[in-house]
Amino acid sequence: MSATDAERAALRHAFALAQRGPRGVNPQVGAVILSPAGEVLAEGWHHGAGTPHAEIDALSTLGPDAARGATAVVTLEPCNHTGRTGPCAVALIEAGVARVVYAVDDPGEVSSGGAARLRDAGVEVEGGVLRDEGETLIASWLTVQRLGRPHVTLKWAQSLDGRAAASDGTSQWITGPEARADVHRRRSLADAIVVGTGTVLADDPALTARREDGGLYEDQPRPVVVGVRAVPQEARVRKHPRPFMQDEGEDLRDLLDRLRELGDQRVFIEGGPTLAASFLRQGLVDELLVYIAPTLIGGDRLAVGDIGVATISQQRRLDIAGVDRLGDDILVTLTPQEA
Amino acid sequence: MSATDAERAALRHAFALAQRGPRGVNPQVGAVILSPAGEVLAEGWHHGAGTPHAEIDALSTLGPDAARGATAVVTLEPCNHTGRTGPCAVALIEAGVARVVYAVDDPGEVSSGGAARLRDAGVEVEGGVLRDEGETLIASWLTVQRLGRPHVTLKWAQSLDGRAAASDGTSQWITGPEARADVHRRRSLADAIVVGTGTVLADDPALTARREDGGLYEDQPRPVVVGVRAVPQEARVRKHPRPFMQDEGEDLRDLLDRLRELGDQRVFIEGGPTLAASFLRQGLVDELLVYIAPTLIGGDRLAVGDIGVATISQQRRLDIAGVDRLGDDILVTLTPQEA
Repeated sequence: MSATDAERAALRHAFALAQRGPRGVNPQVGAVILSPAGEVLAEGWHHGAGTPHAEIDALSTLGPDAARGATAVVTLEPCNHTGRTGPCAVALIEAGVARVVYAVDDPGEVSSGGAARLRDAGVEVEGGVLRDEGETLIASWLTVQRLGRPHVTLKWAQSLDGRAAASDGTSQWITGPEARADVHRRRSLADAIVVGTGTVLADDPALTARREDGGLYEDQPRPVVVGVRAVPQEARVRKHPRPFMQDEGEDLRDLLDRLRELGDQRVFIEGGPTLAASFLRQGLVDELLVYIAPTLIGGDRLAVGDIGVATISQQRRLDIAGVDRLGDDILVTLTPQEA
Repeated sequence: MSATDAERAALRHAFALAQRGPRGVNPQVGAVILSPAGEVLAEGWHHGAGTPHAEIDALSTLGPDAARGATAVVTLEPCNHTGRTGPCAVALIEAGVARVVYAVDDPGEVSSGGAARLRDAGVEVEGGVLRDEGETLIASWLTVQRLGRPHVTLKWAQSLDGRAAASDGTSQWITGPEARADVHRRRSLADAIVVGTGTVLADDPALTARREDGGLYEDQPRPVVVGVRAVPQEARVRKHPRPFMQDEGEDLRDLLDRLRELGDQRVFIEGGPTLAASFLRQGLVDELLVYIAPTLIGGDRLAVGDIGVATISQQRRLDIAGVDRLGDDILVTLTPQEA
C-alpha cells in the first residue's frame, strides 16, 4: 500500500517542522506521529547536533503506550546508528509503532539501514513518499553525504570579454546593483565565504552578506582567507561579525574537510582569479555562477587564471543550468561535466 | 487625414514589390499607383542602380493622363534629386498625382525634400505610414545613410572565460554545430567578411557561407583580408568563389568607405583578437555577436585583445539586444552605447 492522504499531509507538515531546526552539520528533519485513525498525536523536529532526532523528539511528548499501533511520518529514513543518540529505528520499534512513512532514504554509510531494521521487526515501512520535496529540503546535506565534503559554489563577475578589472586594477563597477544584490543574497545562504589574500589586499572586501539598504542579513557566512600573505590590521574582514579564518591554501580539499568539521556545508568561493583557478584545477567545484556584464575591458586582468589546459581537448566543459538576466547583466549558472 | 485601408494594403504590396529588386548600393523600393476609387492602376519597383526609381517604373506602364488625380503609394519618400534619373517628386507632380502616401522619410542629404516639394505643388502627402515595416526593409541602407559607412557587425566565439583557443592555439571546437550554422547563415546575409592575416595564417578559413550539408549559400560575402603579411598560395581563401581583397589595415575607416563604394553595405568582422580590438578602439562597430560556449580554457589566447582601456571608467559599455541559446551555447547580441 502507498501513503494515505492523511500521511502525505502529515509529511508536508513534517517538512515545515524540520525547518524550525538549525542548518548545521546534521540534516533538518521533522516527524509527526499519527493515530491509527489518522489524528496527529505528536510532532517533533531535530534541534541540532547532540539533541534527540526528530522521531525521538516527537515520541518524548507521549505517554508510555500512546504510540502503540501508531504511524510515524518522518522526512528522512529513521537512523540505524548509535551516536550521541540511540538508533531511531529501535526507539520506534520499542514504542510499538506499527507503520513508518518517510520521504528520503538515508545515504549515510553508518546511519542507513533503519528501514530494513524496522521491517525485520514487523513494522510496515513506506519510503520515498514526496521524495523530491524531501531532497530539496536537505540538498546540501545530501551533497555532503555523497561527496564527503561541503558543496562548493564558485562565483565570479566578469566583463563580456572575461576581464575582472581594468589594467590599473580598478573594477568598481562592472556588474550592476541587481547582480550585486543577488551575490549578497547567496552569501547569506552560504556557511562559509572564501577569498584569496590577493583579493583581500586589492579590494578589501567586508565579506558580509548585506541587504540592499546596507543592513546585514541575519545569517552571515564564515569569512575564510586563503594564502600566506598577512591580512592587514585595518582590513574590513577583521570587522566581520564572525571571526575570519586564514588558511595557507596548500591543500584545498583538506580546507574543505576542516570547514565541514566546523559544520559548514555550503562554501562560496568568491575569488580572485588564482583561487578560482585552483579550485577548478582540483575538480573541487560543484556549481559555477558567472555574472557577465555587457561591457568590454580588454587587457590582462582576467576573471579566471590558468587552469592547466594546454590544448583544446583538455578544455573543461560545463553544462548550463540556467541563463538569467539580472538588470543589465547576465547570470550563467553551470555545473561541471563529469571528467 | 491618415492613410486608408486600401492605401495600407497597397503599401504592404509595395513592400513585397520592393524585395523583387536587388540588394545593392541603392535601397529596395516599391510603388503602387491607386485610382481615386482605390483600384490598382500600376505597380513598380527599383531594379537597381542606374535604372528608374520605383515610382517612375510604375508610371511608365500608364498612358499620359492615366495617373491624373491618382494616389502614389511608395515605400520610401519620393526623391528630390537629379542623379542618373530625375527627381521622382517632379515626375509625380507632372503626372498629375493628387496624393502621395509613403512609409519612410528619405534620410539622404541630397535626395531628401521630396515630400516638401510635392506639398509646395499642392499634392497631399502622408508620410510615416507603416514606418517600422518600411525601415526594417531597408535597415542597412538607412544605417549607411546615417553613418556614411557600411554597417559593421563584429563576431567572435569564446569560452565562458573569454578565451578563443587553448595555449597551443587549438580551437576546434569551442562552440557547437548550432552556433557555427548561425554564423554561416549570417555570413550569407553579409556583403563582405573581414579577417586579419593572423587568422588566415593560423586557421586557414575558407570564408564562405556554407549550409549544414557543406554546400554553399547562393549569396557569398566578399572575402577581405586585413594585414601586411602575405596570404599563402595554398590558402583556402584563394579558392573562395569571389576574389579576395587584401588591405594593409592602416586606415579601417577608409577600408569601410572603399567597401561601400564597391556596394558593400553589411560588413561582418570575424577576427582575430587584434582586428576585433582595432575596430572596437576606433568606434567602428555597430553590432556585436558573441557566441559563448559553456567551457573553461584559461591561458592567454583571448578572444579580444587590448582595446585601450586603462581604468574602469573607460570600459566600453554595451546594451544587450538579445540573449539566445543555440544548442549548448549562448549568443549575446549587443550594441555599443553612445560615447
